[in-house]
Amino acid sequence: MPLTAPALDPSTVRPRTDSGYPEPFRSRVLPRQKCALGDALGLAKIGINLTTLGPGKESSMRHWHTHEEEFIYVLEGEVVLRTDSGEQVLTAGTCAGFPLGTRDAHQLVNRGDRPAVYLEVSNRDDSDQAYYPDVDLHYNPPGQPGRFTRRDGTPY
Amino acid sequence: MPLTAPALDPSTVRPRTDSGYPEPFRSRVLPRQKCALGDALGLAKIGINLTTLGPGKESSMRHWHTHEEEFIYVLEGEVVLRTDSGEQVLTAGTCAGFPLGTRDAHQLVNRGDRPAVYLEVSNRDDSDQAYYPDVDLHYNPPGQPGRFTRRDGTPY
Repeated sequence: MPLTAPALDPSTVRPRTDSGYPEPFRSRVLPRQKCALGDALGLAKIGINLTTLGPGKESSMRHWHTHEEEFIYVLEGEVVLRTDSGEQVLTAGTCAGFPLGTRDAHQLVNRGDRPAVYLEVSNRDDSDQAYYPDVDLHYNPPGQPGRFTRRDGTPY
Repeated sequence: MPLTAPALDPSTVRPRTDSGYPEPFRSRVLPRQKCALGDALGLAKIGINLTTLGPGKESSMRHWHTHEEEFIYVLEGEVVLRTDSGEQVLTAGTCAGFPLGTRDAHQLVNRGDRPAVYLEVSNRDDSDQAYYPDVDLHYNPPGQPGRFTRRDGTPY
């Protein structure tokens, strides 16, 4: 019998297949599917995505957040976690967490030959900004809510 | 090679095996193991537990929260989700979410013959209280922070 709220079968959630990134960053993350489980369940304080990352793809550009902490738990396949201190391979059943404001930028890269599937969790804070040390990118600069811009605030 | 922060192998986290419940509720949930992954990773805004619930046991008494929303994702085994609208079986790969303040009380019950393993996620809010419609229990009443009491605020 199909599950009904407050239960949910993630396979019934239509995945987002887009990215808010401008090029050339967009092509580095897509194809990537995100099923917004938290939104589907009516959650407002926490964002929860079930994300599928294709072989050769990056979860995001390497970044850190000012007001949102993040948690990821690997369900299938494996990803390489890249931070300031180097690389670690995360296999199914392992996890990682990124306290806010640490300035230790992170990303996941799928270097395998099959999709990697993981849960990603964060608190939600409209005042959050994200910084990208490796590329000329900034998220949610003052006066441009929800936008990705260059570091100096100019548009792509 | 062992994972190091910000990565974490949950098997290296010593589980909590206690419960803050008074009897007779304590015996209904234990044995139950909770690995506090969020705490181990230094997260402050979100609580994340990897929980193992024994056969015949309940995740909690049926309850709802005033200021914390909850999300659970089943990893192994299965649990029965009990809410005001009845029962649903959650198998591995399915999930449920409980917006705050809905007054639709919930619990998970392991009616199988093997442990059930799931992730549980919530935002953290010190002003949260939990109400238990089926039993004489209340969590975090005014003036008794972090305590479980009877509904009228008297101690067990």
